[in-house]
Amino acid sequence: MNGAESLVRSLIASGVDTCFTNPGTSEMHFVAALDHVPGMRSVLCLFEGVATGAADGYWRMARKPSCTLLHLGPGLANGLANLHNAKKAASGIVNIVGEHAETHRELDAPLMSDIPGLARPMSAWVHTSESAADVGEAGALSVQAASTGAGKVATLILPSDTAWTDGASVHEAGPVPARALPEADKVADAAAALGGADTLLLLGGEALSVENLERAGRIAAKTGCHLLSEWSNARMERGAGRVVVDRIPYPIDLALKRLEPYRRIVLLGARAPIGFFAYPGKPAVLTAEGTEIVELANVDADLTAALDALVAATDAAGIEPAHVAAREVPPVPSGPITHESMAQAIAATLPEGAIVVDESVTTGRGFASWTKGAEPHTWLNNLGGSIGYGMPVAIGCAVACPDRPVLALTGDGSAMYTVQSLWTMAREELNVTVVIFANRSYQILRGELTNVGVQNPGPRAVDMLSLDRPVIDWVQLARGMGVEAVRVEEAGDMAKAIDTGLDHKGPYLVEVVC
Amino acid sequence: MNGAESLVRSLIASGVDTCFTNPGTSEMHFVAALDHVPGMRSVLCLFEGVATGAADGYWRMARKPSCTLLHLGPGLANGLANLHNAKKAASGIVNIVGEHAETHRELDAPLMSDIPGLARPMSAWVHTSESAADVGEAGALSVQAASTGAGKVATLILPSDTAWTDGASVHEAGPVPARALPEADKVADAAAALGGADTLLLLGGEALSVENLERAGRIAAKTGCHLLSEWSNARMERGAGRVVVDRIPYPIDLALKRLEPYRRIVLLGARAPIGFFAYPGKPAVLTAEGTEIVELANVDADLTAALDALVAATDAAGIEPAHVAAREVPPVPSGPITHESMAQAIAATLPEGAIVVDESVTTGRGFASWTKGAEPHTWLNNLGGSIGYGMPVAIGCAVACPDRPVLALTGDGSAMYTVQSLWTMAREELNVTVVIFANRSYQILRGELTNVGVQNPGPRAVDMLSLDRPVIDWVQLARGMGVEAVRVEEAGDMAKAIDTGLDHKGPYLVEVVC
Repeated sequence: MNGAESLVRSLIASGVDTCFTNPGTSEMHFVAALDHVPGMRSVLCLFEGVATGAADGYWRMARKPSCTLLHLGPGLANGLANLHNAKKAASGIVNIVGEHAETHRELDAPLMSDIPGLARPMSAWVHTSESAADVGEAGALSVQAASTGAGKVATLILPSDTAWTDGASVHEAGPVPARALPEADKVADAAAALGGADTLLLLGGEALSVENLERAGRIAAKTGCHLLSEWSNARMERGAGRVVVDRIPYPIDLALKRLEPYRRIVLLGARAPIGFFAYPGKPAVLTAEGTEIVELANVDADLTAALDALVAATDAAGIEPAHVAAREVPPVPSGPITHESMAQAIAATLPEGAIVVDESVTTGRGFASWTKGAEPHTWLNNLGGSIGYGMPVAIGCAVACPDRPVLALTGDGSAMYTVQSLWTMAREELNVTVVIFANRSYQILRGELTNVGVQNPGPRAVDMLSLDRPVIDWVQLARGMGVEAVRVEEAGDMAKAIDTGLDHKGPYLVEVVC
Repeated sequence: MNGAESLVRSLIASGVDTCFTNPGTSEMHFVAALDHVPGMRSVLCLFEGVATGAADGYWRMARKPSCTLLHLGPGLANGLANLHNAKKAASGIVNIVGEHAETHRELDAPLMSDIPGLARPMSAWVHTSESAADVGEAGALSVQAASTGAGKVATLILPSDTAWTDGASVHEAGPVPARALPEADKVADAAAALGGADTLLLLGGEALSVENLERAGRIAAKTGCHLLSEWSNARMERGAGRVVVDRIPYPIDLALKRLEPYRRIVLLGARAPIGFFAYPGKPAVLTAEGTEIVELANVDADLTAALDALVAATDAAGIEPAHVAAREVPPVPSGPITHESMAQAIAATLPEGAIVVDESVTTGRGFASWTKGAEPHTWLNNLGGSIGYGMPVAIGCAVACPDRPVLALTGDGSAMYTVQSLWTMAREELNVTVVIFANRSYQILRGELTNVGVQNPGPRAVDMLSLDRPVIDWVQLARGMGVEAVRVEEAGDMAKAIDTGLDHKGPYLVEVVC
């Protein structure tokens, strides 16, 4: 058995059965091995950022790693931006990156680059297999590394001679290290800290599952503490019957105001709040001076155990959870497209079990309040801030959950970074409804110009943030990649179009001119 | 004056007047400075790989650096693949990469990443400006670094607090270090090595300019040596009246055969020939065993001086150059689309002064022989092998040379990586005619599967190399980004469509179904 085949077999033996691929010459033996070895679904992507983003979305919904297959350093480089987002979301991914044979590395071939150097900034685990005998075990270890804690990015570099040489064997990933249990004194500190409306339980990571939200809701009911989540969450369960947790706002002044009342904050899978960016004359830390912060458990810890311990310590076990959302679906809106009518259109059409991948940037800041009583659904944010995450992550969600509808909400500027996603959606007939908010600008940056202190930007600056020359025709772009599409300019039409998309077999794109 | 303004002014003072941008929040002060400071043309790109590829093309034609403006680590990451190609082509580029303010870096903000670590693999020069007072000088040094030798990638990291703080000043780049002159003993060795048809002068870099090709032609006429260039060249002048230099073939068996006769090879701006990839059972070094190799001058040296010295040493000064191409333009073809009829269509329509950016991969391997007697033109190859280079490089060429027609020849698979290029071409009304060879597969990889020893690939492997499910409709893609387009399926129509594109003001796309 050659190294490539041992890798495919070891990945499958370790539970990895999905590969998002954009291969090249150095990965041809891996591709060939897919023919001999059943059990690995391969999803072709036409750009590597689509593959890595898809692997991120897959992890968030399947809760197990998939692998990517990338061509040498430049192929990995093209995937790094979405690996950055995956790293910040604590998503587990195994990257398989082809490398030149040893003889070629010494010769500085045209495609030679420092692959480990490129991998390290976005990976928790990097390994180069230098012999066929090493590959199977390395594959198993990469899966274990990816599954550690809340999830990690692992990168396995596979030289082509290692892939084509015989003498390899199959290995299975060992057990994943247990996640940290809460320390008793931390639990006591946290329980003591929570009490009254000037105390906050700040949730992140798996604390936002249905069951953990219920636990948090009991604690809130018992202690009177408030609940919030970070601005961006890898995966939050929401909708009717679920405990509502608002997100800390993105705009710095709103965030400062929202956090100002709290004297004590307990962190549970969340980090102490900081601004997304630094702004002249504004603080970087969002909490008021003197706020006491108790970190009960970080995102890698066993958050269920931490919440159970906190429920016990606050004596909240028998209490009805607070803040449970009543079912409240707004009527289908009509009239002009506004931020409010767009939110209503989404809330009105959101089907039970929907997965919402949210890269709506400026447009979607009001969506949360309108959708909190909608049918139960799952909401995914971008934690790394590198735009172009939405459509790729939606691919991974749809592959992981073929029976659930996926709604990808994305700004037009963001969607262009990884526009090739549409082709993979069509090829795999994925049930993704893509909603493009076509405001024809980098709208967020217009606000950020002001935030960083630039008053009255001139025409050249404004021009650098404008996408209206030429206008992007999303309907043609989508059809060009085999995805049916429609453009809407009225709120009722928007709701109707989303419904059409959700009913449609395979992907559908709705361009909302806003 | 704040740091951002000092940087814009220092770049302009140092001769940099073009910026390919995809900015974000951390770069807003740089964007704002563009309003106050005249003299910097800013070209907005919707994906960073377009910006870096455009900067590569700009250098190759303008022979001076432009700058890119990229958003933090992920923005740089998206540009790395084309920076890899630029590095291998020895193109001079100044990357300006925004960074978080110091307070934010310490807090590990969402968009934090190891920017210097990401920059180093593709950059010859990396610097982070830690104070506003440093920025102007750093800008000047970055231009100097980029202009060193044949050209280098320089990356200047600009923290946002450095950009917005006052107390900065303007600096101008010092003189570029002189390029290495040929050593007398090396010249003597090279002159002694050349003589007869079993000796080869292998050319690369600026040895392929019109005047240097003439020098090489004289040496060939006098000594009887052969002339060849590397498989990929940053810029080669070609066509009627110019000395013809064939490229070493890409397929390894053809390359081995082509180089087998040579007992002695002199390198002049070229590297000793190696295979693009390693293949099982094939040599990595392409020259026959025992071939003597004399390196007269590497790509960073003064190649004109080296050729002058070699002309003198071989006593070739008064000799008529050998291998001067006669004007030989094939008739406009008709009939089915074949590799040959496509080559004829291009040769027949190529106007004088055209810049051809060649990413035709498999389709274009026969183009050279058909176009060697065409109207005088410039031909650019991809030296780094990371696909998605063609359309971005064409943007840079068109910005650098607004009066010359640009023809971008690209495979469909390659073009998808940086498809966002079309929008920038439309926005800037660039005279680029894009020819898409739509073979609807990663055709090159089908051959490579066989090359690496995979006989009879199965359906799953073949499926990973096929782009026909769904078929990409390039006409719709182009129109979706504001570029007029046509699809052709016949050789005469292809020639007519290219003519239309060349006559068309602004960009035009021709999808050739092949």
